[in-house]
Amino acid sequence: MTEKKIIKPQPHIELGPGKEFDLIRALLAKWGQSSSGVGDDAAILQVPPNEKLVVTTDTSVDGIHFKREWLEHSEIGYRATAAALSDLAAMAARPLGMVIALTLPRADREEATALAAGIQQAASESQCPIVGGDITSGHTLSLTITALGSAVTPLSRSGATPGDRVYVTGLLGGPGAAVRAWLAGKHPNAHDRARFAHPVPRIEAALALASRGATAGIDISDGLMGDLAHVAAASGIRIEVDLERIPRVTGVSALQAASSGEEYELAVTAPDIDVRTFQEELGMQLTEIGRIVAGPQGVELREAGKKIVTPAGYDHFDRK
Amino acid sequence: MTEKKIIKPQPHIELGPGKEFDLIRALLAKWGQSSSGVGDDAAILQVPPNEKLVVTTDTSVDGIHFKREWLEHSEIGYRATAAALSDLAAMAARPLGMVIALTLPRADREEATALAAGIQQAASESQCPIVGGDITSGHTLSLTITALGSAVTPLSRSGATPGDRVYVTGLLGGPGAAVRAWLAGKHPNAHDRARFAHPVPRIEAALALASRGATAGIDISDGLMGDLAHVAAASGIRIEVDLERIPRVTGVSALQAASSGEEYELAVTAPDIDVRTFQEELGMQLTEIGRIVAGPQGVELREAGKKIVTPAGYDHFDRK
Repeated sequence: MTEKKIIKPQPHIELGPGKEFDLIRALLAKWGQSSSGVGDDAAILQVPPNEKLVVTTDTSVDGIHFKREWLEHSEIGYRATAAALSDLAAMAARPLGMVIALTLPRADREEATALAAGIQQAASESQCPIVGGDITSGHTLSLTITALGSAVTPLSRSGATPGDRVYVTGLLGGPGAAVRAWLAGKHPNAHDRARFAHPVPRIEAALALASRGATAGIDISDGLMGDLAHVAAASGIRIEVDLERIPRVTGVSALQAASSGEEYELAVTAPDIDVRTFQEELGMQLTEIGRIVAGPQGVELREAGKKIVTPAGYDHFDRK
Repeated sequence: MTEKKIIKPQPHIELGPGKEFDLIRALLAKWGQSSSGVGDDAAILQVPPNEKLVVTTDTSVDGIHFKREWLEHSEIGYRATAAALSDLAAMAARPLGMVIALTLPRADREEATALAAGIQQAASESQCPIVGGDITSGHTLSLTITALGSAVTPLSRSGATPGDRVYVTGLLGGPGAAVRAWLAGKHPNAHDRARFAHPVPRIEAALALASRGATAGIDISDGLMGDLAHVAAASGIRIEVDLERIPRVTGVSALQAASSGEEYELAVTAPDIDVRTFQEELGMQLTEIGRIVAGPQGVELREAGKKIVTPAGYDHFDRK
């Protein structure tokens, strides 16, 4: 996506004295036209009439969601922000604004404006103004981004219906390949690294999929199979995924692509989407990978038409 | 405030398998009727027609905003939640819902339901449903609470006008006295400790003050003088505070009360509020402590009608 300016940012409230507020002033200077109306006890937003408010909060913690040896600070800021915006995409919501809660250790204070630059890039790309936040000192670098959006009919996880097909955007497996390379002490290739460091929230794709009859949607940040399990649970249905149809980056197996965490692509269900037209209009990959069936709730991975063992999703609480 | 049930909570989305989701299920069981519609990629809320959305995010980090030797886990959860709700009060907004981002170290995992109980108590007291959140492992216990509310006309910091008077709710100095006792290796007295551990978001008071013509408002979590400096900066006016009128708990000097951080009382400006009627109707203290004047922007503390040196506000970035 090209960088776009937020329309009509509101002036910020004048801040009082103090080191914390000097730091906030530095961040606001970096955010420029991407921030709007910051500085009161809370931010004020207008939800379009007849639309519902959609809100999601997402935390990125040093050592859990990223390692500082892997990413530049601007990438840490970008990625944390994109992760939250991706949850708005999963609801087919249009961004209204975001608030940024930043825990900044002393060792990272020099990098605050680099973090801010990454946050700004993600905000700007999704045309989502930064409307407020909270900044605190602490021992561990951490960002909690709360993204607010709106939609007439938000896309839930719970609307999948037997007979629907399952679609996924983009090519999977890049972030997982990058993490495997880092964990093995190697440098990931540039494409895999970019897939990890610079995920793109699929907001335009989500709006287009919703308008084409999507019945359920989720972003697959826990991995395709793990997140489809949530759709199956929420919708009370069974999902069959054809392993050989899972779209993937070069050098990654279909099973790796099926379980790769840290993806920010979308999986949606819909009765019938014209994939070719979608790809032409949106300029991005969309692949039909399976179907919703009646039967016991869950996700089944199939190869050559037969069920195979399901790889587990990505779970921070299993890792630690 | 007595505990009140949230009206008509929405059912939660069915969650998929995994340890993280087992933990979320345990929290939801603890939250019961105080939580609503949790489990999708994002929460959905309805902002009342003709009202604006008000949103605030607030982080509480172990070792910065509290010490675990000082507070029970339920109090840590309560206090973090009340701090965010207090920012809604400062805007004279009625709560709509909140999302909870919890970073939970392994050592605190057994205490997750105690944290949840405290969060639930604060949510319930302010009739603010818990609508979603994010939970992650990490090395430092941290809660980022994002509170959402609405108001026809949110109360800004920037509306104070020369001729207005300055009012503050409650009695100041308790939390500061508790912190001083702890830092000196002593036990604070029960009343001061309760003022620190169990602050009450002044939502009802804020709505009543707004309806009585308040022109600006702020919660004084950085201390009375520090936060009035923000009102002065935002409104471009000068504030005179009469030291001897600052309402305070027993055993605390007026200067200590003026600079005590971690207060969650409200300071508002208004042309003329009938203090006695307010106190009778709301059952809480309200004190006129000063006035807005023209002249150089800032806050001036006065004793016997003469300017004295202004104590600094509370700033985490000055402390570290």
